[in-house]
Amino acid sequence: MPGKLYGIGCGPGDPEQITLQAWKILQRVPVVAVPQGRKNTPGVAAQIIQHHVPGTTRILPLEFAFSHDPATTTRLWERAVQNLLVPLQQGLDVAFVCEGDSSFYSTFTYIAQGLSAHPEIEIQVIPGVCSPCAAAAAVGVPLVQQTERLLVIPAFRGWQEVASALTHAQVIVLLKMAGQYPEIWQGLNTNNLLTSSYVVEWVGWPQQRIYRGLASYPNLQLSYFSLMVIRPQG
Amino acid sequence: MPGKLYGIGCGPGDPEQITLQAWKILQRVPVVAVPQGRKNTPGVAAQIIQHHVPGTTRILPLEFAFSHDPATTTRLWERAVQNLLVPLQQGLDVAFVCEGDSSFYSTFTYIAQGLSAHPEIEIQVIPGVCSPCAAAAAVGVPLVQQTERLLVIPAFRGWQEVASALTHAQVIVLLKMAGQYPEIWQGLNTNNLLTSSYVVEWVGWPQQRIYRGLASYPNLQLSYFSLMVIRPQG
Repeated sequence: MPGKLYGIGCGPGDPEQITLQAWKILQRVPVVAVPQGRKNTPGVAAQIIQHHVPGTTRILPLEFAFSHDPATTTRLWERAVQNLLVPLQQGLDVAFVCEGDSSFYSTFTYIAQGLSAHPEIEIQVIPGVCSPCAAAAAVGVPLVQQTERLLVIPAFRGWQEVASALTHAQVIVLLKMAGQYPEIWQGLNTNNLLTSSYVVEWVGWPQQRIYRGLASYPNLQLSYFSLMVIRPQG
Repeated sequence: MPGKLYGIGCGPGDPEQITLQAWKILQRVPVVAVPQGRKNTPGVAAQIIQHHVPGTTRILPLEFAFSHDPATTTRLWERAVQNLLVPLQQGLDVAFVCEGDSSFYSTFTYIAQGLSAHPEIEIQVIPGVCSPCAAAAAVGVPLVQQTERLLVIPAFRGWQEVASALTHAQVIVLLKMAGQYPEIWQGLNTNNLLTSSYVVEWVGWPQQRIYRGLASYPNLQLSYFSLMVIRPQG
């Protein structure tokens, strides 16, 4: 009988922001699969869970693409699925860990789709704290309340998209916006939204930074793990 | 010196879907404040955390409104804040628990706002798993992936709003939609979206129900704790 695969969301950074459910699975599975970081360094999920996994657990590093080339991306997903199938077909349970939540822009999604050709493998998805919720908690403000609509935009395609979104959503979260920050700042400035917005970088990590009062920060050099929340007052 | 207030998101239902961080705080604070359920029964957050709190911990039930009358709602928030201030001003740390995430349409938001007149009270917000992430995990599908935009609509105001949202967001989550289900079903049917949608009721609770293939369910009688995800294929 093949092993079971768990897709585990570990929360965005703070190792204590993993759920009891995820923590217990990590204590008992014989194999923990982790996306590798750049240049064979431990990836972020691996760093989050490193103190939760017993020393005897086998760590299975999986390579994913950091490029946007679809051919490379697809080839690496397929290879990751093949690498996961080895222990699973030996009857070993495997936990695949990812940062944040396992269904929210998560690498695990592609693993699960790749395994759909192997219906004999049982999959259980374990949710986690997603980065917008952790960021709002770190800042100490509501993310959304009452009848506010929330729009999450994972890839910035120009200020016009944000301006249009603000006509039907009260709160906007921009993910992976670091490279576009100067352009976003200009749009916020033009629309008097600098005081209604904040940026959280590396939420839950020791290097976490929170930026409010964005008028003082027209040119932030942000890392990949940054998000912005725009919440105009009603 | 006054006590510290923790606003703790406990996840949407499964007691194991609380974070280690939240669990450890519940183990050590002398007072745990819980929103009361209807007719003085334990509320949902109280049920989620009941096995995580030592028997010696003082439980402080707080009454909130189940009506939409603003005067009643405001009066009860103010009284809840006054009731929390008593142990806090005695120097006792207090954990206020809520279901799901503490910043995502959470009662804790109003508590924090009410306490803003008392800057001497330190507040720390502890995030949790929010219901859309837990629902996607329970169903075993991605909530959002790649460049999909996500829109969360907490109060249904008619199908036209959903149809309009679908022109600029790929995934829609409808919260608290139980009472409008028949009207939403008609809209989904007219737009060939019944197979692209699912409903999760009481996610993480023993009575959890998942409905897919909504063509078979034109007239679901859903409870308050239900949500719908609409994710048309690209």
